[in-house]
Amino acid sequence: MRSLSRYLPILDWGRSYNSAVLTNDLVAAGIVTIMLIPQSLAYAMLAGLPPEIGLYASILPIIAYALFGTSRTLAVGPVAVISLMTLTAASSVAVPGSAEFIAAALVLALLSGAMLMLMGVLKLGFLANLLSHPVVSGFITASGIIIATSQLKSILGVSASGEAMPELVSSLVANIGETNLPTLAIGVLSVAFLFWVRKGLKPLLMRFGIPPRAADLTAKAGPIAAVAASTLAVVAFGLEDAGVKVVGAIPQSLPPFTVPLFDAALWQQLAVPALLLSIIGFVESVSVAQTLAAKKRQRIDPDQELIGLGAANVAASFTGGYPVTGGFARSVVNFDAGAETPAAGAFTAVGIAVAALFLTPLLHSLPIATLAATIIVAVLSLVEFKTLRTVWHYSRADFAAMAATILVTLLLGVEPGVMAGVGLSLALFLWRSSRPHAAIVGRVPETGHFRNVLRHKVITDPRVVTIRIDESLTYLNARWLEEFVLEEVADHPQVEHLVLMCSAVNAIDASALESLEAINHRLSDAGVRLHLSEVKGPVMDALERSHFLAELTGRVFLSQDEAFSTLVKMAHDPPQGSQDPYLARGLI
Amino acid sequence: MRSLSRYLPILDWGRSYNSAVLTNDLVAAGIVTIMLIPQSLAYAMLAGLPPEIGLYASILPIIAYALFGTSRTLAVGPVAVISLMTLTAASSVAVPGSAEFIAAALVLALLSGAMLMLMGVLKLGFLANLLSHPVVSGFITASGIIIATSQLKSILGVSASGEAMPELVSSLVANIGETNLPTLAIGVLSVAFLFWVRKGLKPLLMRFGIPPRAADLTAKAGPIAAVAASTLAVVAFGLEDAGVKVVGAIPQSLPPFTVPLFDAALWQQLAVPALLLSIIGFVESVSVAQTLAAKKRQRIDPDQELIGLGAANVAASFTGGYPVTGGFARSVVNFDAGAETPAAGAFTAVGIAVAALFLTPLLHSLPIATLAATIIVAVLSLVEFKTLRTVWHYSRADFAAMAATILVTLLLGVEPGVMAGVGLSLALFLWRSSRPHAAIVGRVPETGHFRNVLRHKVITDPRVVTIRIDESLTYLNARWLEEFVLEEVADHPQVEHLVLMCSAVNAIDASALESLEAINHRLSDAGVRLHLSEVKGPVMDALERSHFLAELTGRVFLSQDEAFSTLVKMAHDPPQGSQDPYLARGLI
Repeated sequence: MRSLSRYLPILDWGRSYNSAVLTNDLVAAGIVTIMLIPQSLAYAMLAGLPPEIGLYASILPIIAYALFGTSRTLAVGPVAVISLMTLTAASSVAVPGSAEFIAAALVLALLSGAMLMLMGVLKLGFLANLLSHPVVSGFITASGIIIATSQLKSILGVSASGEAMPELVSSLVANIGETNLPTLAIGVLSVAFLFWVRKGLKPLLMRFGIPPRAADLTAKAGPIAAVAASTLAVVAFGLEDAGVKVVGAIPQSLPPFTVPLFDAALWQQLAVPALLLSIIGFVESVSVAQTLAAKKRQRIDPDQELIGLGAANVAASFTGGYPVTGGFARSVVNFDAGAETPAAGAFTAVGIAVAALFLTPLLHSLPIATLAATIIVAVLSLVEFKTLRTVWHYSRADFAAMAATILVTLLLGVEPGVMAGVGLSLALFLWRSSRPHAAIVGRVPETGHFRNVLRHKVITDPRVVTIRIDESLTYLNARWLEEFVLEEVADHPQVEHLVLMCSAVNAIDASALESLEAINHRLSDAGVRLHLSEVKGPVMDALERSHFLAELTGRVFLSQDEAFSTLVKMAHDPPQGSQDPYLARGLI
Repeated sequence: MRSLSRYLPILDWGRSYNSAVLTNDLVAAGIVTIMLIPQSLAYAMLAGLPPEIGLYASILPIIAYALFGTSRTLAVGPVAVISLMTLTAASSVAVPGSAEFIAAALVLALLSGAMLMLMGVLKLGFLANLLSHPVVSGFITASGIIIATSQLKSILGVSASGEAMPELVSSLVANIGETNLPTLAIGVLSVAFLFWVRKGLKPLLMRFGIPPRAADLTAKAGPIAAVAASTLAVVAFGLEDAGVKVVGAIPQSLPPFTVPLFDAALWQQLAVPALLLSIIGFVESVSVAQTLAAKKRQRIDPDQELIGLGAANVAASFTGGYPVTGGFARSVVNFDAGAETPAAGAFTAVGIAVAALFLTPLLHSLPIATLAATIIVAVLSLVEFKTLRTVWHYSRADFAAMAATILVTLLLGVEPGVMAGVGLSLALFLWRSSRPHAAIVGRVPETGHFRNVLRHKVITDPRVVTIRIDESLTYLNARWLEEFVLEEVADHPQVEHLVLMCSAVNAIDASALESLEAINHRLSDAGVRLHLSEVKGPVMDALERSHFLAELTGRVFLSQDEAFSTLVKMAHDPPQGSQDPYLARGLI
């Protein structure tokens, strides 16, 4: 039972479900449903898909996540960045809006779902770690800029395309003469209204005595007001005839049952984009889930989250949807509205299904410029340049990775951007790991402490040299270790004993062990003994499984203090009658 | 002057050159020349090239390395593994032995030389670290097996081809009926003789009173005796008519001046193979150079070695050669024969040039089976299965990487083998870095030491929990850190103070900093204060450049002992009149 509930978390929370929890979940679901309808339409259109696909992607995927996911309040569905990535990926194989394009989006959802579930089963959640925080932050900032720019075309009522800034901007500029003024008016008013709702509505409502939480939730429903007002304006003033593009006829139906194309060539073309999309979606979703879970001291299990998100995407692929993930905005609304269990998600799904069945005729005259405005206002909150400055102050290496991610994403598009970010983070990490910090140390006078000779006034001895290594020893720095130690020996011609102080060495892998053996051997050839000090327990356990300790020309000292005292004494006052084999042999 | 001699090490050793050093260098060069002639022919044929190309690759590349390399005794030229990699790479674009194949080998040498020099100038020597010792060892073992198997065709006198074991073995088995008995006799006798020379000749010579070093060097010249005896046998018994394949006519000439093809498509096809070949060659060469340099307390500079090897390969590409690197066998002979400076290499080059001009007619009737025998005996010393056992005992992860490299190389060939090895080493390293060791610690009674609660009887407090993290905090484990800390807090419902003990944390990157900020924030939401203890100097310097310390809900303690005492006192006996904002607020 315990293990089954690990894979089906519903067995956990389902047992303590009661009417109080039900009420909370129902209220939250109502609020989220209202917010999700315009958002779902807008993101589907951002992805180059018919608007109803956004609704379909917000129904069954939510239920699938509710069954398998571990977060109690995460709201799964279409999100901005994943919609942009879907547009980019599907555009590489079909024309946006075409039947092939819709089919490609289904395949992306299926592949992404399968990959996420596979990673979950294989416990590969750690792969998401390959994206460092500055890289993710840079990627989302750049994606936000691209998305906002791409939506300007709907605000202006012109056509424009492109996956990265250079093409987008040049096609916008080229077509700016075709700007439709009524569309522009609706777009600009919607953007202004939505920004005001975000910043100004809540304080206003509170001044009218509405309690903060209710004021907050009302403000979150702002887009619905924009949708209603602009739709009414279009109908009242016959703006469709003036060239204002509207959503148009949306089929009134539950999500259709769809079978993604099983086409090997298509799958191969979409495999890498699906992987990138899965990882970005997972990273976004897990951070949101963790933030919310922590507030209630709940837990989420990242490997199980992979399965939950994977199931949601597979569900999307069989019900006419497109790739989904846990969204920040909707999850926060769900949480703030008081959702307590994934059942709130299931009720939201029912709400959206009802909307898809009965409310779509009301959306016929909704101007696309208004949807574009909701997207612009939503994604501009993703753009955060101040992180760049913070990271610059903290670490130049991280700054470089972040700046490169932003530039590559803006100039070349989202896929090159993610890959450049992953590549650079990895290269910097490997580079740093391959050149760890190490210092020659000496004894601080009248203490047992040993410090860097370059930073402190310490006691040293020309015959006994101690190197403190501030990093685990792995294959990445094994060669560095050999070079560093042998250079230090070459720099200290009088040295007879070399001590490696291992207080910060948390592990020694097989390559580093071999390097230690080589160092031991080479030092022995040069008449120098190798000693270790302050070796940690688990490291010592591992060394004892090897031949290294048997071959070591020197000793392993528990403390550096003991090592230094003993060796200085031995070097200057060798025990009578003993013949040191290494000193006697000398150089070859 | 100092900086110039860094890039042209000859300016260093050239100034102290005198007649005693000259004599030593000349003697060593003579011995190495004799050994190199059959080896160069054999490796060229292994690479699918005409034998004289092996001689050409042993002339100018040696001089180029002598000018730019930092090892005094490394001998550069054709080596077994690089010859096999050349065969594999060039076979992908041309038929072995054809003019296009020879041209592809020149392009490989040029690309490899250019890549090595570029890596040297950009100080990218650390890229070679991506190959862990077990992976290199596994790769060389598997390559040795493939090479030895491929040479069986020449011993049997049949034709066979294939880049990996399955094709090689099946084509050998398919053609075994065509075995040429005289060829087989020469091959088997040569192999037996060469093995005996290796194991039995030196002791025999020493029993006749020959001093050990001379006996050793004589034994090393064994292949020359096999070459001479088998050539004489072919001539005396007219074995060529009996179907014994011989080297045949070799042009008598100095290396020709060649210009590698500048063909963009060809370059693109050979770029990845050239990169793999460069890295493998560099790793082999540097380990040999370091081993020899350490014996005389000399230094080698890996970044300058890249330039030296790069120059040698560029030289090979312009003088009718093929990719070269520092070879283990020849370098050891050079060292043992008393070479003191790179001038010995230059003299060897002259010796081989003389051989190429005047001695090639003598090699006409040399049976290819004898050359195959020298290769088999040489490469079988590369095959080391005992390393597998050692590594198994030390680390299962390293063993998995090594075993996978061997299997992939044997079954799929050298290029997939190297890539699998690099990929696996990296994946394992990242996996380990992403799940570091961490422990809840408590105070060892009546001491200031803190140890793992699972391993020791220690004093703990339900309100003060300390986690010791045994790894640097980076983007790879930032997410793990959040999960680990939040799980521990969820497991300790009474906790009010959480201490992260950072004695083994050597660095905190921007991602980990952000995770610490998130942890601080989430713990604060849950009414728990976060403290740090035993933060290292450089880490503290970095933290002071961020906002983290200002936002930290708790304190940074110099010692864990102080942290525990202070916090336990605070938790159980809060100061009078003070209102703790976090404890007062409680859970959200």
